[in-house]
Amino acid sequence: MIKLSSRENPEIKRLASLLSSRREREEAGLFVVEGMRIALDAAEAGLTAETAFFSESFWQRRPEECGRIAAVADRVVLLEDSLAQRIGDTKTPQGVFALCRRPAPDLSAFDGAGRYVVLSSLQDPGNVGTVIRTACALGLSGVVLSADCPDVYSPKVLRSTMGGVFTLPVWVADDLPAAIARLRQGGGAVAAAALTETARPISRRGTPGVRSVVIGNEGNGLAPGVIACCDRSIILPMARPGQSLNAAVAAAIFMWELAAPAGE
Amino acid sequence: MIKLSSRENPEIKRLASLLSSRREREEAGLFVVEGMRIALDAAEAGLTAETAFFSESFWQRRPEECGRIAAVADRVVLLEDSLAQRIGDTKTPQGVFALCRRPAPDLSAFDGAGRYVVLSSLQDPGNVGTVIRTACALGLSGVVLSADCPDVYSPKVLRSTMGGVFTLPVWVADDLPAAIARLRQGGGAVAAAALTETARPISRRGTPGVRSVVIGNEGNGLAPGVIACCDRSIILPMARPGQSLNAAVAAAIFMWELAAPAGE
Repeated sequence: MIKLSSRENPEIKRLASLLSSRREREEAGLFVVEGMRIALDAAEAGLTAETAFFSESFWQRRPEECGRIAAVADRVVLLEDSLAQRIGDTKTPQGVFALCRRPAPDLSAFDGAGRYVVLSSLQDPGNVGTVIRTACALGLSGVVLSADCPDVYSPKVLRSTMGGVFTLPVWVADDLPAAIARLRQGGGAVAAAALTETARPISRRGTPGVRSVVIGNEGNGLAPGVIACCDRSIILPMARPGQSLNAAVAAAIFMWELAAPAGE
Repeated sequence: MIKLSSRENPEIKRLASLLSSRREREEAGLFVVEGMRIALDAAEAGLTAETAFFSESFWQRRPEECGRIAAVADRVVLLEDSLAQRIGDTKTPQGVFALCRRPAPDLSAFDGAGRYVVLSSLQDPGNVGTVIRTACALGLSGVVLSADCPDVYSPKVLRSTMGGVFTLPVWVADDLPAAIARLRQGGGAVAAAALTETARPISRRGTPGVRSVVIGNEGNGLAPGVIACCDRSIILPMARPGQSLNAAVAAAIFMWELAAPAGE
């Protein structure tokens, strides 16, 4: 088994650049999961890894978990503990990294028969990850992201999804209007979360007919061109003037209402 | 007007220690708001400041806003731009700091007549701030925190509340069981968000009689002793086994259901 100790090793340099660069990840068709829990989630979801990296102490301490992660990897590399501590994106590294292959997006889930959340130009990686985690837990059928959202396979988004990105279909759409049109094919309406003149507050009685909701940028909301692609606008009524909700929180309440409308 | 240029100045050192230390904040009865928007929110909410600090360039560029913040401060101190860039908790400092006086907690709001969210042993400052922001926007009557939650007046919590902490009553309760008993005085039930044997899923039909919900630690949930203080346990049904929600997201959905139950 290979054992590495130097940060200058080309494999370690590659691992670091795949952690930090979206372009490197896209060109290589790979991404890095860091930490035991999420590496196990990836393995259980059927992903495969080119390489699994373990610190020596982790390898000795958790042989069972290392075995389950190594089983989906083409090869295993051990890292000297001092090296494992110096790479990665977390404050207290566990010394577990898996270089996973990006799954091909399964667009069949986006046929309009389910319920969906669409993220347009979000900015914060934690919000994107939290929305994917929430969509997964609440039983939505998929998440659509505009291409200018943070990379789903960045370390921070991956962490916030808590593995949700491995089980829920996620579609990064280069053409967002076309994606929205596709979600409408099943007969469900697509609502923009936007305070327009005709926006209606969603209520506990549900949002009849709406099966998808589009959430906009944290600071600027939805662009007019995106709102124009939607069937209607909906808002969450605020109790106090000038107040607002965090984008991931607003998305969660909309999803909660979409996921199981009144009467179902 | 005083103008400071050195990080070694005692006033700057004090500002830095009030930004970083909960104990310093509690002993001084002060806290620091950083940034124009939140300083204006504090001023509009009726808070007063011992000192308002502005970078020279901000003072020249935004005289109107500086004036509104300075109007609630006993004194104004200008900072050389190079100094203003080196203090503070944000990545891109605006050069605005207000040393505000902590308001006395208004416990009359916690008489049990309203709807409340209780946070027990939360860990993440962003979650605490997001819950306060959400509670404010959804029209809850107040937020109760156990004493071991992150400090509400830390820079990160303040930022995440988006000013909500200045308008919504917040009670840091040394005795959480006593606080929960107080919330029950108005006749409403207090529910623990906890997967116990008798826990019932909340539904779109509302949670009859429940006016308060208690949310536990991100990793460990609620302690049995806290659950025992509550009238019942409620959960959010998960669509997929093993999935969970971020604590602030779960709190938001519970609050959404509490804020305006079915039929209201």
